Amino acid sequence: MKTYLECIPCFIKQSLEAARMATDDEGIHGDVLKEVMTHLTSLSFTHSPPEVSKDVHGIIRTITKSKDPYKKVKDTSNTMAKEQYPHLRKLVEEADDPLRMAVKLAIVGNVIDFGTSNRFHVEDMLDHAVKKDIDNESYQQFNKSLCDAKTILYLADNTGEIFFDKVLITELLKLGKEVTYVVRANPIINDATREDARFAGIDALVPVIDGDAGQQQSAPGVVLQYASQQFLDFFESSDMVISKGQGNYEGLSNVDRDVFFLLVVKCPLVAQDINDGIGKLILKVKK
Amino acid sequence: MKTYLECIPCFIKQSLEAARMATDDEGIHGDVLKEVMTHLTSLSFTHSPPEVSKDVHGIIRTITKSKDPYKKVKDTSNTMAKEQYPHLRKLVEEADDPLRMAVKLAIVGNVIDFGTSNRFHVEDMLDHAVKKDIDNESYQQFNKSLCDAKTILYLADNTGEIFFDKVLITELLKLGKEVTYVVRANPIINDATREDARFAGIDALVPVIDGDAGQQQSAPGVVLQYASQQFLDFFESSDMVISKGQGNYEGLSNVDRDVFFLLVVKCPLVAQDINDGIGKLILKVKK
Repeated sequence: MKTYLECIPCFIKQSLEAARMATDDEGIHGDVLKEVMTHLTSLSFTHSPPEVSKDVHGIIRTITKSKDPYKKVKDTSNTMAKEQYPHLRKLVEEADDPLRMAVKLAIVGNVIDFGTSNRFHVEDMLDHAVKKDIDNESYQQFNKSLCDAKTILYLADNTGEIFFDKVLITELLKLGKEVTYVVRANPIINDATREDARFAGIDALVPVIDGDAGQQQSAPGVVLQYASQQFLDFFESSDMVISKGQGNYEGLSNVDRDVFFLLVVKCPLVAQDINDGIGKLILKVKK
Repeated sequence: MKTYLECIPCFIKQSLEAARMATDDEGIHGDVLKEVMTHLTSLSFTHSPPEVSKDVHGIIRTITKSKDPYKKVKDTSNTMAKEQYPHLRKLVEEADDPLRMAVKLAIVGNVIDFGTSNRFHVEDMLDHAVKKDIDNESYQQFNKSLCDAKTILYLADNTGEIFFDKVLITELLKLGKEVTYVVRANPIINDATREDARFAGIDALVPVIDGDAGQQQSAPGVVLQYASQQFLDFFESSDMVISKGQGNYEGLSNVDRDVFFLLVVKCPLVAQDINDGIGKLILKVKK
């Protein structure tokens, strides 16, 4: 997906948010916005949003001298989601169709902003979200592909959400699938890294690899141009690819292979691109 | 009210909106955003939002070569609100306290985005809004000031909304008050100018003056530094000042005289400054 003009104010808004997480110094907040705006005046709209975001967050980290502005938010998200994990397992175990519930929860995990919510709020959101349903036709396609697949490449998105991924991965393993879990090589926004996968115990279940090469800044979405060779090999050879979240969708929506995108749409431009509404639980097959 | 860092993405978002109203040329939309961002990198945060907005919209008009990008939206707003006028009059005539209803409607008129709504939607919003109430203590203060006042300076905000102003002005005239209505000297966003006051027939009821000097671009809010001498004379000598909308609040919230601000808060920073919630009908006295 290309970057739209509407993305510009959104990048700037997020830059302010990130700068404030990194430091309380208002002068630095202003410096961040000015430097980000200067960068965006030379923006190439052929790049996808995660590519632009990679550079924008590089500027933020440089100016705030913070390697990981979202660290606190990420830790809170992981802790909150970890508390929910037994509840999530129970929802799957008690479901008529445990796989369907696990798929739904993996999508639901993409919407909850754990970093800014209290425990009871998360439980409320969870119960509310679980009542929503996913598109039946897409789920049948997902199920069919799954039956035919032996190897699955699973692209992570956010911290917190990774516990919801763990629920689905557990179900995939029960079905005898070989799953490889893909995280970001370096911290970017609130996206999950290897450290988070370890915190969630996913590394004890399946191999965890970096999506990007790691020598440079990570983008908040897999972009093939910056992908690690290991990722590219898996991406080509895996029978099935499950991609979580908007960032990975934005980076991979135009690639030449089937991908199952599991996400909740939060942005009107992604909604337009994916042809579905904001807040909906999306399971979409890219052919 | 000073300009906050949060205003920056908001200015950029509005610039895109305005550029799109002025032209369909996407290249020009991008040029507008780039030029606005370049301007905002040297922003002084001691200026109020209307002062910054004045310059931002100047850039937009120059690059798009459009003297009045919001012309169509303004005309639609005026036409839609004109259709509602008999209904508004009826609401006042049938009210137990016609003045209170007229004050409320003048505030309600500040919230409805006529430009993007259909007729039935406007009627729904209106009925819904009329059920809300205004702060009783503030209304008592308003009423007391009104009793003591002979001359009233009434600062307009948006097109469309001016028909709601007409309702309140009519009630003020019934009470024997001398009202002077203040509009922008030049088109800025969807704010009302002399032409709009004429369309609403307000010029047939009361004198209409320009708030700003007119030789330069207007700001979307009265800022004393750019005010016309005529306005300054009225501002000093009038017994009571009624100011409509966020822009005038942002420009006048720190001035040294009593002002009754009638508005609906649409922005979280104004909400914080005014110490009340988004979407609430605000009648606030500045002492």
